[in-house]
Parts: sequence; C-alpha cells; structure tokens
Amino acid sequence: MKTVKDYIRTIVDFPHEGIMFRDVTTLFADPRGFRMTIDQMLHPYAGQRIDKVVGLEARGFIIGGAIAHQLTLGFVPIRKKGKLPGAVLSEAYQLEYGEAVMEIHDDAIQPGERVLVVDDLLATGGTAAAGIKLIERLGGEIVGCAFIVDLPELGGRALLEDMGIDVHVLCEFEGA
Amino acid sequence: MKTVKDYIRTIVDFPHEGIMFRDVTTLFADPRGFRMTIDQMLHPYAGQRIDKVVGLEARGFIIGGAIAHQLTLGFVPIRKKGKLPGAVLSEAYQLEYGEAVMEIHDDAIQPGERVLVVDDLLATGGTAAAGIKLIERLGGEIVGCAFIVDLPELGGRALLEDMGIDVHVLCEFEGA
Repeated sequence: MKTVKDYIRTIVDFPHEGIMFRDVTTLFADPRGFRMTIDQMLHPYAGQRIDKVVGLEARGFIIGGAIAHQLTLGFVPIRKKGKLPGAVLSEAYQLEYGEAVMEIHDDAIQPGERVLVVDDLLATGGTAAAGIKLIERLGGEIVGCAFIVDLPELGGRALLEDMGIDVHVLCEFEGA
Repeated sequence: MKTVKDYIRTIVDFPHEGIMFRDVTTLFADPRGFRMTIDQMLHPYAGQRIDKVVGLEARGFIIGGAIAHQLTLGFVPIRKKGKLPGAVLSEAYQLEYGEAVMEIHDDAIQPGERVLVVDDLLATGGTAAAGIKLIERLGGEIVGCAFIVDLPELGGRALLEDMGIDVHVLCEFEGA
C-alpha cells in the first residue's frame, strides 16, 4: 500500500533552478492519499484539548479546513500581507532574498485558546515561526505544529523546537 | 440560533473605497459557523456521485479541503497564474481593470470525473467560470458549484446558470 510520501511528486527547478519542489497536489488529488494525510496529521493530538486550527496560506488552508471540520473546530487563516480585510497583527520574517510579512486578524484567537498550526511543508521554518509568534501575541497557546513534509537539511524543525514547539511531520525528503 | 449569514462580517472600503467586503473569516473561526457552512454546502448533493472536489484559490481551499475530507474524495486546487508547479492549462478572465489567469494541473481531472466546485463568494462569476472551463477542458463534468455568499446584483449566478451549471448558495447580500 502506498504511503503518504509515495503520493508526493517532485518537480525539478520550480520555482527556480536548483529547487526540488515537493508537490503535494498529487497527494491531495488522490482520495486515499488525502484521507490518510489528514488522519495521520491528527493522530498525535488524539485526546488533547484543541480550541482552534490555524492554517498558513495557501496549502495550509486545504489541510486546516479538513482538520477543523473533522474536529468541529473553528478555522483561522494566517495570510500574506494585505490579504486579510480586518484589523491585523503583522510579523516579518527573512526570505533567501529580502523579507516577507504574515498577518492574522487581531480578534481571531482569544487568550488561553489552544491552537493547532498546520501547513504542507517545513523548510527553513520562517513562515511557521512568524505564525507562532502571531498566535502567541494574541495569547494563544500552541498545542503543536503539524506538517506533511519536513526538509531536515533546512533546519526548520530545529528552529521551531528551540521555540518550545512540538513538531509533527509525516515524512522527510533530502535536499532543499 | 445564528444562521451562516449572521456570522459573516462586513468590512467597509476593502480592498478599495466603495466595496462592502463580505468577510467569511468570522464564520470560519466559529466552530458552529464553520460546521454549519460545510454541512449546508453539501446538502443538495446528498446521494449524488461526486469524484473530485475543486477549490478556487484561496478561501475555496478551506472549504474544499473540508468537503473533500468529509466525503473521502481527492481535492484539486485551481490557482492564480504561476503558483502550480506542474504542467498546467490556463484560462484568462476579465477583471474590472485588466485580466487575470487561473490554472489547473493538466493531469488533475480525468475524463468523465464528476466534479464539485466550491468557493466562498459568487460576485461576477469570472473566476468560477474560468475554473469550470478548465475542468471541462480536461473532460470533467460539473456536478455543481457551491458558494457561501451570492451577490446577485453582480450577475455571477446568471452567468454560471447560462453555462448550464447548477449553482448552490447559502445566503445573499445586497450591493457589490
């Protein structure tokens, strides 16, 4: 039986030369692949109190919507700058060249709420770290961060664990 | 008991002056609001054969992920130009100023597959019509298009129904 990793397609040189892009759309398009993904992402959290699910733009929305619905919880998006219509908190983070900004609605998380953060891929961890800071600035407590793919060579897992975050991944790929 | 519509927040003058932005993030953040949304979007399709769920970038990913998982189906994203890593089909459509392009992976739908298309908001229908054309070019058959909000004055529903599409919406707002 195929594993979650088996359904992931690698696209060479996307979005630019030298990148091996791990494409989860082939995983999501398969009914068993998508079902297994969502189920396996949730296994470590069985029996834990979770109040909200946060997904990081944009592939984290697909996963987060599925998980929030399965658990009958609310879903909160963390988006790139300028996309959320209400009052926001912002957090900048470093990219390979320059920086980017992630935002959350400033009323999206209540103090003391326990939050599960999800995204498809953990690379340098910059986006996830910015998201965690936004949630913590609103008084939320991170139950964990769950990803489908980890690229261990890029150090994201170590970065998040140094922040005291529990990280859960379904599979790893070598290379950047 | 609050309805789906009651949870939707209106932001005045976003993304630019004169727009009443119907913000579904307050609906998604509420556990009962999100649950009711996904359940009600599916009610017309009970007992119908559906093979795949397509969500339109980006809020359609939240809904589509939830629906695909609930039905144990595959999920396929239709994205803005340049975001999908594999070989794509493209479809341009008119915006108020200029045009935009939506894309789908060219192997994401198999001929004869029955597809449910979902998004948060039906305005002019340009994005949804482009998405429908992409699915039909791949040989997919549209079971229906489901939205949370319709803005009837903008004519999107009439546009899609003229294409022979079954449209399902949960609520309407006046104004653009």
